[in-house]
Amino acid sequence: MEEKRWIPTPADQFTFGLWTVGNRGRDPFGDAVRESIPPTTTVKELSRLGAYGVTLHDNDLVPEDASLAEHDRIVKQFQAALSDYHMAVPMVTVNLFYDPVFKDGALTSSAKPVRTYAIEKAQRAIDLGVQLGARIFVLWGGREGSETDAARDPRQAFSHYRDSLNALTSYIRGSHYDMKIALEAKPNEPRSDIYLPSTGAMLAFIQTLDHPELVGVNPELAHAKMAGLNPVHEVAQAIDAGKLFHIDLNDQRIGRFDQDLRFGSDDLKGAFYLVKLLEDSHYAGPRHFDAHPYRTEDYAGVWDFAAGCMRSYLIYRDRAQQFARDPDIQEMLQAIERLNADETVIRSAEDRKRWGQHGYAYEKLDQLVNELILGVR
Amino acid sequence: MEEKRWIPTPADQFTFGLWTVGNRGRDPFGDAVRESIPPTTTVKELSRLGAYGVTLHDNDLVPEDASLAEHDRIVKQFQAALSDYHMAVPMVTVNLFYDPVFKDGALTSSAKPVRTYAIEKAQRAIDLGVQLGARIFVLWGGREGSETDAARDPRQAFSHYRDSLNALTSYIRGSHYDMKIALEAKPNEPRSDIYLPSTGAMLAFIQTLDHPELVGVNPELAHAKMAGLNPVHEVAQAIDAGKLFHIDLNDQRIGRFDQDLRFGSDDLKGAFYLVKLLEDSHYAGPRHFDAHPYRTEDYAGVWDFAAGCMRSYLIYRDRAQQFARDPDIQEMLQAIERLNADETVIRSAEDRKRWGQHGYAYEKLDQLVNELILGVR
Amino acid sequence: MEEKRWIPTPADQFTFGLWTVGNRGRDPFGDAVRESIPPTTTVKELSRLGAYGVTLHDNDLVPEDASLAEHDRIVKQFQAALSDYHMAVPMVTVNLFYDPVFKDGALTSSAKPVRTYAIEKAQRAIDLGVQLGARIFVLWGGREGSETDAARDPRQAFSHYRDSLNALTSYIRGSHYDMKIALEAKPNEPRSDIYLPSTGAMLAFIQTLDHPELVGVNPELAHAKMAGLNPVHEVAQAIDAGKLFHIDLNDQRIGRFDQDLRFGSDDLKGAFYLVKLLEDSHYAGPRHFDAHPYRTEDYAGVWDFAAGCMRSYLIYRDRAQQFARDPDIQEMLQAIERLNADETVIRSAEDRKRWGQHGYAYEKLDQLVNELILGVR
Amino acid sequence: MEEKRWIPTPADQFTFGLWTVGNRGRDPFGDAVRESIPPTTTVKELSRLGAYGVTLHDNDLVPEDASLAEHDRIVKQFQAALSDYHMAVPMVTVNLFYDPVFKDGALTSSAKPVRTYAIEKAQRAIDLGVQLGARIFVLWGGREGSETDAARDPRQAFSHYRDSLNALTSYIRGSHYDMKIALEAKPNEPRSDIYLPSTGAMLAFIQTLDHPELVGVNPELAHAKMAGLNPVHEVAQAIDAGKLFHIDLNDQRIGRFDQDLRFGSDDLKGAFYLVKLLEDSHYAGPRHFDAHPYRTEDYAGVWDFAAGCMRSYLIYRDRAQQFARDPDIQEMLQAIERLNADETVIRSAEDRKRWGQHGYAYEKLDQLVNELILGVR
Repeated sequence: MEEKRWIPTPADQFTFGLWTVGNRGRDPFGDAVRESIPPTTTVKELSRLGAYGVTLHDNDLVPEDASLAEHDRIVKQFQAALSDYHMAVPMVTVNLFYDPVFKDGALTSSAKPVRTYAIEKAQRAIDLGVQLGARIFVLWGGREGSETDAARDPRQAFSHYRDSLNALTSYIRGSHYDMKIALEAKPNEPRSDIYLPSTGAMLAFIQTLDHPELVGVNPELAHAKMAGLNPVHEVAQAIDAGKLFHIDLNDQRIGRFDQDLRFGSDDLKGAFYLVKLLEDSHYAGPRHFDAHPYRTEDYAGVWDFAAGCMRSYLIYRDRAQQFARDPDIQEMLQAIERLNADETVIRSAEDRKRWGQHGYAYEKLDQLVNELILGVR
Repeated sequence: MEEKRWIPTPADQFTFGLWTVGNRGRDPFGDAVRESIPPTTTVKELSRLGAYGVTLHDNDLVPEDASLAEHDRIVKQFQAALSDYHMAVPMVTVNLFYDPVFKDGALTSSAKPVRTYAIEKAQRAIDLGVQLGARIFVLWGGREGSETDAARDPRQAFSHYRDSLNALTSYIRGSHYDMKIALEAKPNEPRSDIYLPSTGAMLAFIQTLDHPELVGVNPELAHAKMAGLNPVHEVAQAIDAGKLFHIDLNDQRIGRFDQDLRFGSDDLKGAFYLVKLLEDSHYAGPRHFDAHPYRTEDYAGVWDFAAGCMRSYLIYRDRAQQFARDPDIQEMLQAIERLNADETVIRSAEDRKRWGQHGYAYEKLDQLVNELILGVR
Repeated sequence: MEEKRWIPTPADQFTFGLWTVGNRGRDPFGDAVRESIPPTTTVKELSRLGAYGVTLHDNDLVPEDASLAEHDRIVKQFQAALSDYHMAVPMVTVNLFYDPVFKDGALTSSAKPVRTYAIEKAQRAIDLGVQLGARIFVLWGGREGSETDAARDPRQAFSHYRDSLNALTSYIRGSHYDMKIALEAKPNEPRSDIYLPSTGAMLAFIQTLDHPELVGVNPELAHAKMAGLNPVHEVAQAIDAGKLFHIDLNDQRIGRFDQDLRFGSDDLKGAFYLVKLLEDSHYAGPRHFDAHPYRTEDYAGVWDFAAGCMRSYLIYRDRAQQFARDPDIQEMLQAIERLNADETVIRSAEDRKRWGQHGYAYEKLDQLVNELILGVR
Repeated sequence: MEEKRWIPTPADQFTFGLWTVGNRGRDPFGDAVRESIPPTTTVKELSRLGAYGVTLHDNDLVPEDASLAEHDRIVKQFQAALSDYHMAVPMVTVNLFYDPVFKDGALTSSAKPVRTYAIEKAQRAIDLGVQLGARIFVLWGGREGSETDAARDPRQAFSHYRDSLNALTSYIRGSHYDMKIALEAKPNEPRSDIYLPSTGAMLAFIQTLDHPELVGVNPELAHAKMAGLNPVHEVAQAIDAGKLFHIDLNDQRIGRFDQDLRFGSDDLKGAFYLVKLLEDSHYAGPRHFDAHPYRTEDYAGVWDFAAGCMRSYLIYRDRAQQFARDPDIQEMLQAIERLNADETVIRSAEDRKRWGQHGYAYEKLDQLVNELILGVR
C-alpha cells in the first residue's frame, strides 16, 4: 500500500480544538486520566503531525480571571508557538458552559446578570479571536436549554437568544471586525433539551436576526447523529443555504451520550459520504476535528488519535475521487441523470403503473459504492 | 368529577383526518383488521362526538382514476354530509406516497416524469381543497428521501423540492386562491432518511422559496419525538417565526416506528406543555388529530379513540388554565421574572461565584407542576 | 387535597444513595456546582424527610487509601448517625469506575492486576456492607465494556466477569455472610458499549455462575429507558425469575445520556405502572432512589428533590390502589379475564375471522387509566 | 481485484427466507411494488446465485386454509424444486402475526382460543419443517406485546408464553422429532413493546422452561440495533451460553423502524466484527439473511440484493482472516494478552496510579482495524 498518499499537510486544512487532544478523560463517572498539556505543546505536536492549525475556547488559553498582563503574556507566548510551527488559528469559540454561573444557561439564562456577563465574555472571546487571526467565531450554547419547561417559556428563550446574537453582530460590526459567527446545534446533553436542537433549527433562527449575513452554522456530525439525523443531509442543507461557515468532524453512535469519537472511526459509510460532500461542494474552510481520544489512552494514544482523524479523512477523500472515476458507478449515475431529464409525461393509470414498476437499481449501486469504500474495487 | 367540563364542541376546533379514524390497522407485519368506512359515516360520527371538522388526502375522498363525473358526484355527496352535520374541512393534503410511482420520491424524485406528475397531483388536491373550503394545504413528503446517498446528491433533492414548491405557490397565486401551504417534517420512515427531517429544517428551507409568505409548517408531535426532539420547543420556534399554520396532535415513544398514538396517551407531561403552549400563544387554528386507533380495536374502539383524543386535550387545557391560577406556581414564576429584570452586574470572580451558587428551585417547581398534572393540587 | 396522605414514613422503605443527594452537579461540560456534604448530614436530612435508610459505594463513606484507624473512625461516626436518626443501610455497592485504574474495566479488564484489585476492592466493600447491616450488595460494572471490539473478544470479557463473580460468591459463602449480590445492567455510558446491557442479559448470565442462588438483579429504570426498553416488562421478568433483589428508581428520556431524573418526574404513566407492579407483586425490598437533582439547584433544591421522589411514589401508590377499586376499570379487566378462560375452539376460517374482528376495547381502557393517573376519576 | 474470491457456494451455508427476496415492498405508507413470485422460482434463482438453502414461514409456502390434498401437492412441488436445485431447508418458522386473529398476541394473547390456535398452528409448522428436513424451528413472537400495560400484567404474559413453549417442546419430544426451537427477540414494532425484547431476555427466559435444552436463540442483528444494543456482544452471549442455534443477518440504523437492510450495507464496521465472531467461534449453522430489498427495486434489483448479502459476507470473512494474519494487529493483541497474564499485584496508591496511567493504545488498534476493513492494509 502506498501509505504516503495519506500523509496530511497544511494544505489539507486540518485543525483541532485545543480541548480535543487536551481532553483529560474526565466523564460523569470518572476522574481525569491524563495530565493537562500546555497549548504550546499541542501546537508543536499537531504541527509535527501535519495539521494546519488549532482552535480554542477563550479559557482553553487564558484563565477567566487572568490579569491584563497575564493575558498578554499568554497570548504572546502562544503566538510565538504558532509562528514557530507555522500553525494558524482560523476559529475561536467561547466557553459559556463550564462555570457554575451558566448552570441555567448563558445567553438564554433567566437571570439578566448572567446573560449580560455571557455576552461580554463572548465579546472578549471575539476580541481574542481577532488578535489570533481567526475569522470564524463558533458559538455552541451548551447550557441554553431546560430540564423543565415550566421554568421558562421557550419563546422567551428564543427572544433572549436573538437579543444576545444581535448584540454580538452589532459588536462585530461596530468593531469593524472581519469575523463571522457559526452557530452549533446539539439536541441534548448536558441539558435535558437544548434549544434549537439541529442545524436546520439554527438556519431558520438565523433568518430572524438583525444581521443574518454575519451568521452561519457549524454542524457537528456527532450532534446530528445523537438525534439519528443524517449529517450528510444536514450539512447539504447548510451548503444549499450558503451557510456552511465551519464544520466539526467526529463520530458517534445514534441515541447515546456525546461520544466525540475519532473521525471516521465508527460509521465508515457515513464518513465517506460526508467527505465526498465537502469535496464535491468545494468547501474551502478548515476540516476541524472536534473529537477526543478514548479514556484508555495516554499521550502516545492521544497523538495516534489525532493522526488517525487526519489519515482517515485522506483515505475517504481518495475514495471520493475514485467514486468520480469508477466507470460502473458513473454509468449508473448517468442512467439516473437521464431520468432527471426525461420529458415523458405520465398521462394515464397505465403510464403510472409502468413508472411504478421501474427498477432504480439502487441495491446494486449501493453495493458498488460499499465495495469501493471497502477497497475491493 | 364534573365530567361535563370535558365535552368537546365545535368551538374547540377539533379536527381529524379521514385516514385517522379510517385507519384499517394494516402494518408491515399484518393485514387490515377493520373494514373501510365511507367518508360520510366518518363525518357523521365525528360530528356526533363534538368535532369541528375533518381533513383529507385527495385520494381519501376521490379515487385517483375517477372520471370527472364520479369526482363531482363524490364531492357533492361529501359536501352534503358536511352540511348536514355542520362539519368543516379546514385543511386538505395530497397523497404523494402510497402509489408505487412515488417509490423513489415524488417532488424530489430523480425521474422528471414523476416530479411533474406529483406537482400536478398536488395542484388538483389544492383545487379540491378550495372546493371544500379549506385554507390550509399540508404537504408531507413521505417518500422524499433516500436509502443510499449514492443515488442522489441531497443538494439536488433540495433543488427539485424548491422548484416543486415554487410551482405550487405560483399555482396558488395564479389561481387567486386563499390557500397557504404547511410543510410537515419527519426524520425517517418509510424512507431510511427523509429530507428536511425536522420542523426547524423546514422553517429554514421556506426562506429559500420564491414566496415564503405562503408557506409555513405543520409540526407533527410524533415526528419530532421519533428523533427525540422536544415538540414543545419545535412548535415554539414555529410560533416565534410566525409560521405555525397547522398542527398534528398525537403521541409517540422516542426512537421507534411511527406509532401515531392517541393524543396525550403516552407522554402526559409533554401533552400538558404542548396544550399550554398552544393556548398561551392563542393559536387560532384547528387542533388536528393525526393518530390512529390501536390495531386491537373494532369500530367501537375507533370512536373511543377519537373521543379520547378530544377529551384529553380538554383535560390538559383545564390544567393549563389552572397553572395560570396556581398561587404557589405563580409565585415561583414571579421570582424567575425578577431575575429576568435584575440589573445587577457581574463584575468579579466573587460575583460570578455568588451567581453560580444561586438555587433556581426548579426541582420544586417541576414537582408542583407534575402534581398539578396529576390532579393532586 | 389531603396532602397528609403522601407523607413518607420509614415503613415505606424509601432509601437514597449517599451519591444521589450528594451529587455535586459535575458533568462532562461543567464543574461541580454544590459543595460536598458529610454523609452524616445526609443521614440526618433524609431521616427528617421520612426516609428509611441510605446506601453507599465504599468510597462514598471511606476514602480508598484510608488507614485502618481512619476507616474505623469514619464507620463508627456514621453508625452513630444511623443510630441517632434511626436510619438503615440495607444495601452497599462498590465503586469500580471512578479511579483511572479502572479505565478499561475492572472485573473484565484485560489487565489481570486490575481484575485482581477490583475483586479485592469489592470484597472489602462487602465487608463494609456486612458491618453496616446491609444484606444486598449491588454491582454496577460501569466500566465493563468497550470502545473497540478489536481489543477484547466479548467472550473473554464474559469469562473474566464470571470468574470475578464466582470469586465474590465464594467469598460471601466462605465468610458465612448473609449477603446477596444484585447485578445492575446499563447499555452504554461511560463506555461505548457495556457488556450485558439489559436486566435480561444479566438474568441469563446469572445462570452460568457457580452460585446463581446468591445473585439477582437490581434493575435501574433509567438504564432500561436509555435503550428504549419498557422498564415495567424488565422488572416483571426479574420478578418472574425470582430475582428482583433490589431496584433503582429514577427517570429518563429514551436515547439520551444518563439523566437520573427525579423519580416519576418525566414519564408519569410509566411511573404509575412501575409502582403498580411493585405493589401488586408485594415486592418487599427497599424503594431505592438512584437519581440526582438538577444542576440548577442549591441544597434547598436537593432536599426538594428527595422529598419529591418519595412523595411521587406515594401518589402513584395511591393511584395503583385506586385502580384496584375503580369499578369501570375492573369491569373491563373482568371481561379480559373471561377471554383468558374462554374454552371456545377456533376450528375454521370463519371462527378465525370472527376472533380477528373481536374488539378488545384497549383504547377505552387506556384512556380510563390515564384519567385515573391524571386524577379526573 | 480477484473477484472470484467472493463467489458464494453451498459450502458457505447461505440461506434466505422465502419472505425476504419475496418481500413485495408493502409498507405502512405504500402499496406493494412487486408481483409475488412462486417459491420454486426463489429456490431456482437463489441456487443460481450460490445459496445453500431457503427457509420459510408455514404460510409462505402453504396457504392457511389449504386442503390436505392442496398442502401435499404444494409441498411435493416445492420438494421437487429443492431437489432439482440442490437446495436445503435447514429452518422453518411460523407466522403468528399476519392474520387479524393475532392482533393482541398469539402465544400470549389474553384470549385462550387464540393461544390454543397459535400453539396448534406452530405444531403444524413444526410438522412441515420436519417434512422438509429442517432441524431448527425459529419462533418470532411479533405480536407478543402490548400498547397498554393496563390490559395484561406482563407476568401473566410470561406465564402464557412459558406454557405455550412447554407445549411445543412437549410436542417435539412426544413426536420424537430431531428439532430445536430458536427464539427471536425484538424490542418493538409492530407492538409498542414486545415482551422479552432482547436476546438476553430470551436466554434468561429459556431457563424457566420445562426443557431448556431444546430451546436456544436466533438473534437478529437489526432487532438488537433498533434498541442501540451491540449485536456482537449479544451474539457472543448466546455463544457463551451454548445457545446460538441460528442467526438472522441484515442491517439497520439505531432507533428506527425495522429496516431489514441488505447485510453489511450500513454498518460496515459492525458487520466485520459480527462475521469475525461467527468465524472465530466456528459457528456451524446457516448464515441466514433476513433482510429485504429496497422498495425502489424490480426483480433484477432483488437478485442484486441477494447477491450483495452473500458477497459482502465473503468480503468481511476475508477481512477477518486477514485480521488473524496482520502482523501489526497481532503484535498489539499479544501485548494485551501479556496484560491478561500479568501477575503483578496492585498494593499501594502508587501502584494504582501507575496502572491508571497505562496507555492501552486502543486508538491505534482501532485505526489499524478500520484501515484493514477499508482495504488499505
